[in-house]
Amino acid sequence: MTRVAIIGAGPSGLAQLRAFQSAKAAGAEIPEIVCYEAQANWGGLWNYSWRTGTDEAGFPNHGSMYRYLWSNGPKEGLEFADYSFEEHFGKQIASYPPRAVLFDYIEGRVKKAGVRDWIRFNNRVRDVRYDEATGKFSLIVRDTVKDAETTEEFDNVIVASGHFSTPNVPYYPGFESFKGRILHAHDFRDALEFAGQDILILGTSYSAEDIGSQCWKYGCRSVTVAHRTAPMGYKWPENWAEVPALVRVEGKTAHFKDGSSRDVDAIILCTGYKHHFPFLPDDLRLKTANRLATADLYKGVVYVPNPKLFYLGMQDQWFTFNMFDAQAWWVRDCIMGMIALPDRATMEADVAARVAAEDALEDDYACIWYQGDYTKELIDETDYPSFDVEGACKAFKEWKGHKKKDIMKFRDNSYKSVITGTMAPKHHTPWKDALDDGLETYLKN
Amino acid sequence: MTRVAIIGAGPSGLAQLRAFQSAKAAGAEIPEIVCYEAQANWGGLWNYSWRTGTDEAGFPNHGSMYRYLWSNGPKEGLEFADYSFEEHFGKQIASYPPRAVLFDYIEGRVKKAGVRDWIRFNNRVRDVRYDEATGKFSLIVRDTVKDAETTEEFDNVIVASGHFSTPNVPYYPGFESFKGRILHAHDFRDALEFAGQDILILGTSYSAEDIGSQCWKYGCRSVTVAHRTAPMGYKWPENWAEVPALVRVEGKTAHFKDGSSRDVDAIILCTGYKHHFPFLPDDLRLKTANRLATADLYKGVVYVPNPKLFYLGMQDQWFTFNMFDAQAWWVRDCIMGMIALPDRATMEADVAARVAAEDALEDDYACIWYQGDYTKELIDETDYPSFDVEGACKAFKEWKGHKKKDIMKFRDNSYKSVITGTMAPKHHTPWKDALDDGLETYLKN
Ligand SMILES: Cc1cc2nc3c(=O)[nH]c(=O)nc-3n(C[C@H](O)[C@H](O)[C@H](O)COP(=O)(O)OP(=O)(O)OC[C@H]3O[C@@H](n4cnc5c(N)ncnc54)[C@H](O)[C@@H]3O)c2cc1C
Ligand SMILES: Cc1cc2nc3c(=O)[nH]c(=O)nc-3n(C[C@H](O)[C@H](O)[C@H](O)COP(=O)(O)OP(=O)(O)OC[C@H]3O[C@@H](n4cnc5c(N)ncnc54)[C@H](O)[C@@H]3O)c2cc1C
Ligand SMILES: NC(=O)c1ccc[n+]([C@@H]2O[C@H](COP(=O)([O-])OP(=O)(O)OC[C@H]3O[C@@H](n4cnc5c(N)ncnc54)[C@H](OP(=O)(O)O)[C@@H]3O)[C@@H](O)[C@H]2O)c1
Ligand SMILES: NC(=O)c1ccc[n+]([C@@H]2O[C@H](COP(=O)([O-])OP(=O)(O)OC[C@H]3O[C@@H](n4cnc5c(N)ncnc54)[C@H](OP(=O)(O)O)[C@@H]3O)[C@@H](O)[C@H]2O)c1
Repeated sequence: MTRVAIIGAGPSGLAQLRAFQSAKAAGAEIPEIVCYEAQANWGGLWNYSWRTGTDEAGFPNHGSMYRYLWSNGPKEGLEFADYSFEEHFGKQIASYPPRAVLFDYIEGRVKKAGVRDWIRFNNRVRDVRYDEATGKFSLIVRDTVKDAETTEEFDNVIVASGHFSTPNVPYYPGFESFKGRILHAHDFRDALEFAGQDILILGTSYSAEDIGSQCWKYGCRSVTVAHRTAPMGYKWPENWAEVPALVRVEGKTAHFKDGSSRDVDAIILCTGYKHHFPFLPDDLRLKTANRLATADLYKGVVYVPNPKLFYLGMQDQWFTFNMFDAQAWWVRDCIMGMIALPDRATMEADVAARVAAEDALEDDYACIWYQGDYTKELIDETDYPSFDVEGACKAFKEWKGHKKKDIMKFRDNSYKSVITGTMAPKHHTPWKDALDDGLETYLKN
Repeated sequence: MTRVAIIGAGPSGLAQLRAFQSAKAAGAEIPEIVCYEAQANWGGLWNYSWRTGTDEAGFPNHGSMYRYLWSNGPKEGLEFADYSFEEHFGKQIASYPPRAVLFDYIEGRVKKAGVRDWIRFNNRVRDVRYDEATGKFSLIVRDTVKDAETTEEFDNVIVASGHFSTPNVPYYPGFESFKGRILHAHDFRDALEFAGQDILILGTSYSAEDIGSQCWKYGCRSVTVAHRTAPMGYKWPENWAEVPALVRVEGKTAHFKDGSSRDVDAIILCTGYKHHFPFLPDDLRLKTANRLATADLYKGVVYVPNPKLFYLGMQDQWFTFNMFDAQAWWVRDCIMGMIALPDRATMEADVAARVAAEDALEDDYACIWYQGDYTKELIDETDYPSFDVEGACKAFKEWKGHKKKDIMKFRDNSYKSVITGTMAPKHHTPWKDALDDGLETYLKN
């Protein structure tokens, strides 16, 4: 029997489990599936951890999410086509759920599917080896609770280990003697730690925007954001400033490219993440920038140098859960022989064409459509329930408009589900006044 | 030619390089040596890093040292017998040097020995495999700068990767919603981050004592130390309290076993470290508690299940640099055939006897002598320059007395070198007033 290993039980790995389970439910013979998950529970980044640095077993802590994190895009852009928010919560809910609410939703689908038994928790893949002679992969896996290792063979491996967990941490002169705290967004946990402080943020993407907003919401004294390329340009609150790139720090003073300077208590590096696969040898290891068209992945999922190996969710992400689903259903059909792979040259040409198409995109909105089209392309080749991808792209466009209008109020808006067609209710409390991010509180609509 | 791999270029790995180099200098034929070091420089923990969490390449950051760290024991207890402080600095220096001064000293000896070329920096060992058929080890090593892997074969492997880098991080109820900062000592960097704050420390060993003292010295508002077993019992300053074990936290409030509680801004877990070897398979992996007589190591260095494999510095440490030297010289002679290993039963009996002897020790002072005797035992079997181990034990005894007398002043005392016989000068500034921990400032005596 074909044996398939999935590495990771975050949204991508869970999508893969659900894809196989749905084929099985439809009467197909599916391969034997083993999903290895390093953590004690599923959900990936959505499985909150208060830890920073290392986890209980001494490995790098996976969690990058923090307390009071709310979805940064409308939930209407990520809804599962086979499991709506209404099905899960028994009603339509507001559009920007906090982390705990989305965790509950992700979990709901796989609980219903009954796939928990396919997962080996506290099992960290330490090494993967491919044997040319047998055509099989060996996975060397550490059970961190039993403190023991196993080795098993598989015909296919699907890497779903995420790529927003290993921080990219640049050095700036003076960091070694900065008289305050320096941390990466990955280790940010509670905005209250910065109440009353002057903070400096490096970076201008989602982490920068959201961590700055949280610190503002929970009472920091001031936020200064330094940009390497361009400012974010939103209409920020009074105690918020965008400044040119950081040049160096001295004591508590940060000096910027235009000669200006500020005294700060903490520096939060919102400088992105690395694709990092410490468990993979060079011949199996994806090396790509964080972009929409990754290097070396045919159809965004098949590892061209060894097409028995697949990667899920390795793109930069406008679309998330629904794109992971599209990928997972496609990979399933590929492994089950319902989709045939072309020769290597054709796969390489596919990758090159995607890269060129992305390079030609002119703005964020074009990027959203590009990823929407990609998602649709995969869906059209499998039995994943089709949905109104254009509608989702339009929700993203509205979202961008709402952010531009008022960055501290965009989460107070609602959008229409592209799965059930229902309009989301307005949330009971404006985001900036909603200090409690619990599930019960959120659902009181 | 015999090939020997050393994993790590901290004080232990460097002792091993110096041991082989000194044999070569004396005319012996030595094996080919390759030392792999994950960091960009040598010195191990003494090579300060401002980073917390992961390093530049995305692996767990090795550094556990922090700014303003001074030696916690007298330098007279760790002096190299073949390279005195006077030889290095051209004069005798005060007894509790800050980190930068000890780094300089460690580096001085190996610069003089000319062994830097034997080290491959930015090379992280990812896997070690032993082949029964060939009797050789394969080391799979990632060059994190070139982002590429190499595999090489060796006859012997010496693990010198340290065991104070992977934190042991316990969970207490309420940690997931504590409204402040939780960190392990491993991620403590600058006491100034806690100026004006109320801090809670868990643990009663060296990290607890020293991090608390630093926070006090650099202006925190109060220090509370909770003990699981027994209080440290020093005469602490006014704003310092020892309390029973932590039970849970709620908001910012820490509740203790006796029903008392305190509001705190930060919780610093000084709860020790794990022996952690993510690069080793089970059959080569040392599993031991942090104690003086480790499990499974004959003479404290030979891995009994596979005696071609050695471990350095894996004991809990009263003695450090000079004990690592004793071990390194002994391992060298073992690899070079000058010391023969007994059969497995005899080696196992040796381990059992050491464990039993340690278990019978009655107090700290007996532990110090025990480790002194162990160091002397190894030295007596090699050509490492003998020195007055008893004298070092006596310095440790004085040190303990000085701590008891005044914990915030013990570093103002001086001791006599057991290598050169000279008395150390009194330092120019009392420790509590010496805010600058730089090398130049320290050497102004
Ligand atoms: C701070 C932050 C906020 C975000 N907010 C949003 C949001 O609001 N909306 C949204 O749609 N997306 C958001 N995202 C994007 C996020 O990437 C996706 O939502 C989603 O979590 C990706 O799923 P994944 O399964 O690919 O990866 P992950 O969620 O990272 O899951 C990977 C899993 O693999 C496991 N794993 C890793 N290595 C191993 C190993 N060696 N062996 C075994 N298991 C292993 C991990 O433990 C983890 O469970 C956010 C990301 C970050 C960093
Ligand atoms: C906070 C703190 C303070 C201390 N203060 C003192 C003191 O005042 N006096 C004292 O005598 N001792 C002190 N110590 C004890 C310390 O353990 C020793 O001084 C000494 O650093 C131990 O040396 P080592 O070489 O065994 O380990 P380390 O110094 O930890 O060096 C290990 C080296 O191995 C490398 N390495 C690890 N894994 C790999 C890999 N997979 N591949 C390649 N390289 C790898 C690391 O990068 C590192 O350079 C302190 C320890 C701590 C944690
Ligand atoms: N739910 C939420 O609210 C939420 C919150 C946070 C994050 N997220 C998600 O997390 C993921 C990651 O987002 P991210 O913002 O962490 O990473 P990111 O999108 O990759 O952005 C990285 C940022 O770091 C900057 N940068 C990189 N190297 C730098 C250097 N050496 N000096 C200065 N700046 C540097 C980049 O600047 P340049 O533009 O100059 O290259 C860019 O602004 C996204 O999927 C996002 O949606 C979601
Ligand atoms: N130069 C310096 O000034 C300096 C500074 C710091 C550290 N160091 C060195 O660093 C090394 C490590 O020292 P360390 O103090 O970090 O570790 P350690 O000596 O191993 O001590 C660990 C401490 O944590 C406590 N602990 C463990 N688990 C706990 C739990 N679940 N709850 C509460 N307490 C718990 C232990 O308490 P019990 O006693 O109850 O088991 C013990 O007090 C030593 O070699 C030391 O010399 C040096």
